[in-house]
Amino acid sequence: MRIIVVGGVAAGMSAASQARRRDPDCEVIVLQREHDISYSACGMPYNIGDPSRMLEDLIILDVAQARNRRGIDVRVGCEVSTVDTVGRRVTVRHLATNETYILQWDRLILATGAKAVMPKLPGLDLPGVFALRDMTDARGIKELLGRANVRQAVVIGAGYIGLEMADILHGRGIEVTVVEKATTILPGFDMEIIDVARRELDKQGVLVKTETSLKSVQQHGQDLVVNTDHGELIAQLVIVAGGVSPNVALAQAAGITIGETGAIATDDAMQTNIAGIYAAGDCTQAWHLVAGKPSWIALGTTANKQGKVAGANAAGAHERFGGIVGTAGFKLFDLEVARTGLGQPEIDRLQLDAVRSVSRHHSRALHYPGDQPITTVLFAQRTTGRLLGAQMIGGDTVAKRIDVFATALHAQMNIGQIEELDLSYAPPFAPVYDPILIAAAVASKDLGRLADH
Amino acid sequence: MRIIVVGGVAAGMSAASQARRRDPDCEVIVLQREHDISYSACGMPYNIGDPSRMLEDLIILDVAQARNRRGIDVRVGCEVSTVDTVGRRVTVRHLATNETYILQWDRLILATGAKAVMPKLPGLDLPGVFALRDMTDARGIKELLGRANVRQAVVIGAGYIGLEMADILHGRGIEVTVVEKATTILPGFDMEIIDVARRELDKQGVLVKTETSLKSVQQHGQDLVVNTDHGELIAQLVIVAGGVSPNVALAQAAGITIGETGAIATDDAMQTNIAGIYAAGDCTQAWHLVAGKPSWIALGTTANKQGKVAGANAAGAHERFGGIVGTAGFKLFDLEVARTGLGQPEIDRLQLDAVRSVSRHHSRALHYPGDQPITTVLFAQRTTGRLLGAQMIGGDTVAKRIDVFATALHAQMNIGQIEELDLSYAPPFAPVYDPILIAAAVASKDLGRLADH
Repeated sequence: MRIIVVGGVAAGMSAASQARRRDPDCEVIVLQREHDISYSACGMPYNIGDPSRMLEDLIILDVAQARNRRGIDVRVGCEVSTVDTVGRRVTVRHLATNETYILQWDRLILATGAKAVMPKLPGLDLPGVFALRDMTDARGIKELLGRANVRQAVVIGAGYIGLEMADILHGRGIEVTVVEKATTILPGFDMEIIDVARRELDKQGVLVKTETSLKSVQQHGQDLVVNTDHGELIAQLVIVAGGVSPNVALAQAAGITIGETGAIATDDAMQTNIAGIYAAGDCTQAWHLVAGKPSWIALGTTANKQGKVAGANAAGAHERFGGIVGTAGFKLFDLEVARTGLGQPEIDRLQLDAVRSVSRHHSRALHYPGDQPITTVLFAQRTTGRLLGAQMIGGDTVAKRIDVFATALHAQMNIGQIEELDLSYAPPFAPVYDPILIAAAVASKDLGRLADH
Repeated sequence: MRIIVVGGVAAGMSAASQARRRDPDCEVIVLQREHDISYSACGMPYNIGDPSRMLEDLIILDVAQARNRRGIDVRVGCEVSTVDTVGRRVTVRHLATNETYILQWDRLILATGAKAVMPKLPGLDLPGVFALRDMTDARGIKELLGRANVRQAVVIGAGYIGLEMADILHGRGIEVTVVEKATTILPGFDMEIIDVARRELDKQGVLVKTETSLKSVQQHGQDLVVNTDHGELIAQLVIVAGGVSPNVALAQAAGITIGETGAIATDDAMQTNIAGIYAAGDCTQAWHLVAGKPSWIALGTTANKQGKVAGANAAGAHERFGGIVGTAGFKLFDLEVARTGLGQPEIDRLQLDAVRSVSRHHSRALHYPGDQPITTVLFAQRTTGRLLGAQMIGGDTVAKRIDVFATALHAQMNIGQIEELDLSYAPPFAPVYDPILIAAAVASKDLGRLADH
């Protein structure tokens, strides 16, 4: 049996490895446009930030290792131009030679990922202007930082990738300006979280210009001139982090169903509407357990897990992907920011009746060195008290604390049950009432529970 | 209505405050043997370790604040010598004057705490020999460290309080020897965890003598000679951390039911067998949600929560304490150690058929600075795959990771459900598969799940 995997990063290589593990007799061919495979895209900003690290650090498995250790036939620099779902064939174009050839498959796994959204504006193709989506982008940025005298950088987009890059570039001594067209940074996050994040950016000396739209970029000698509707900025590096969208053109052309989110629709076995064709990772939507409907959130964890399930099932297993609750976290200078479940925009879209509550507490026992404030926002269903979502920001172990809320979402816990959780306590890592418990207690009050007694 | 609370630390002051909050008209009297109230006993080792901190830092509320801010009549240096459950009276002895008086109550809350187990051996009353249970102990130790030239210390007992003290004293430049009569340190923990802890102690230069029993302590000039069945040790400070036992003498004499654990038995409203008499904190047992029976684990979190419930109910509410899953954590030099649920000894006592699995993974993305190994031991029920317990040790965010397993225990999750958890990921604080997910995947394999497909 031959399994063809289109895409060789997180989902694709997870799928290929899992297929070979499940059925060592099957032939697995990975077709990858880029020359790198199996790299940690999420690790790129941090690697760029550290001149002592090689970008190749991010590669978990190279082509030779994939071939020799796992028996996967990886072909890089190869683009799949068409999928024939009836004849079970793909047309492969070798990018360097422009030669094409046909490959038959018994099972096909689409792991075509997502692409950076690049606005159609003049100058975004200039040297010094980068998205940050693949290793080519990362190499370009890191090479520029090593070679040129980059004193100023402009980051377009204040989502978490944009802010991670602001953090990284600032850490390399560069004056960073973040340009965001929306009214706030971190669109989709709660205002309480945004306020703390904004203060951190101010404290660190990162200039943030919200409600500001990019118009064009121009070369001016050694500099780039970034034109916005609120004036111009000078930079030697421009990062466009205006969001990502799923790569679905190939699937769409082949008649594979695209879901309501704009990403490929699959069942929980990661199979598309066409038997024998699977999809996984950033090109695919996932069942959101709290929303009770599909959602599209491009994340490395989900890509790896979906890839594993798709690969196993392509090789004859009956695995299922359990769905997501929308957990994500990132580092913002000295803070961690994390969320899980639904936020206000999703709650509004789903027309849920939710109570929002805000609490502030400490990460460690009072007076214990390293104690930091943590702000938590919870959303709970008014009638049942069921947790719908949580967001946290603070200086100490926020991202792993959000996992307790994520677990509570999986278990469909209500606020009262979260209040009763027996969580670890010792002065070096928690106050006697953990911020999680304080947040639940505040939510409980806000839900009017105490009034019942 | 008058509520009398016996004991004024975590459970007692939580109870008193909560009663006043629920019913501002009720009279609340706290009778406390010590002169300090409302202090963080768990914070004592860390405070002792830091000469720049005052011990008074640990006091959350002093007597005047309790009186003025919360309207609680706190009487320190007062021992309750008898409880008359029929006449609803306590006899109070003022320790300084030895005078006694009688107080009537409508509701009584026993929060008499736990005491250090001091073996009946010669010399344990010598100056320089301390337990670490209350503020008097803490003051004695800190004062000695500030005054005398303590170069060597012996800690009797290698449970977590003993090892915390070893950490703290070592941090003050003292040569520390830990003496433990059992075959290993950290009795009750899994051998995999113990091995890592033992290596950390070796690395830090703390001498550990297991299977060694204390025989006596003698004064020899400025030094203490600690005699064991394996030779003698010289020290200027000896800490006896041989465990704690619940203070139940008063309850017992009054005819209040003592549970199978040796601590006071209550229902989930924290009421004892006698209507109107409540108990909370370290003198009380708690319902263990995983064992399905009462257990006695003296911990500050449980004490605070039980106190709150007892106080609310004494003031007329109908709160319940949800029970514990046995979560605890502590810092061991550069590592964190944490556990939740059942360990092998409890599993054996309950005659459960459990599968134990061990995994090792990383705390952060590979190559990310600060990445540390984490060892996880899971216990799961063989037939159902239900999680029974978890233990972790490692250098980075172990204690808050254990909270995910604690939450899973509350939700009665099985290993398959834990494997599917959507946990936060970003290189600064987790690898793409968190150690929690890796541990669940290994447990899943050990449970033979993969063989089913």
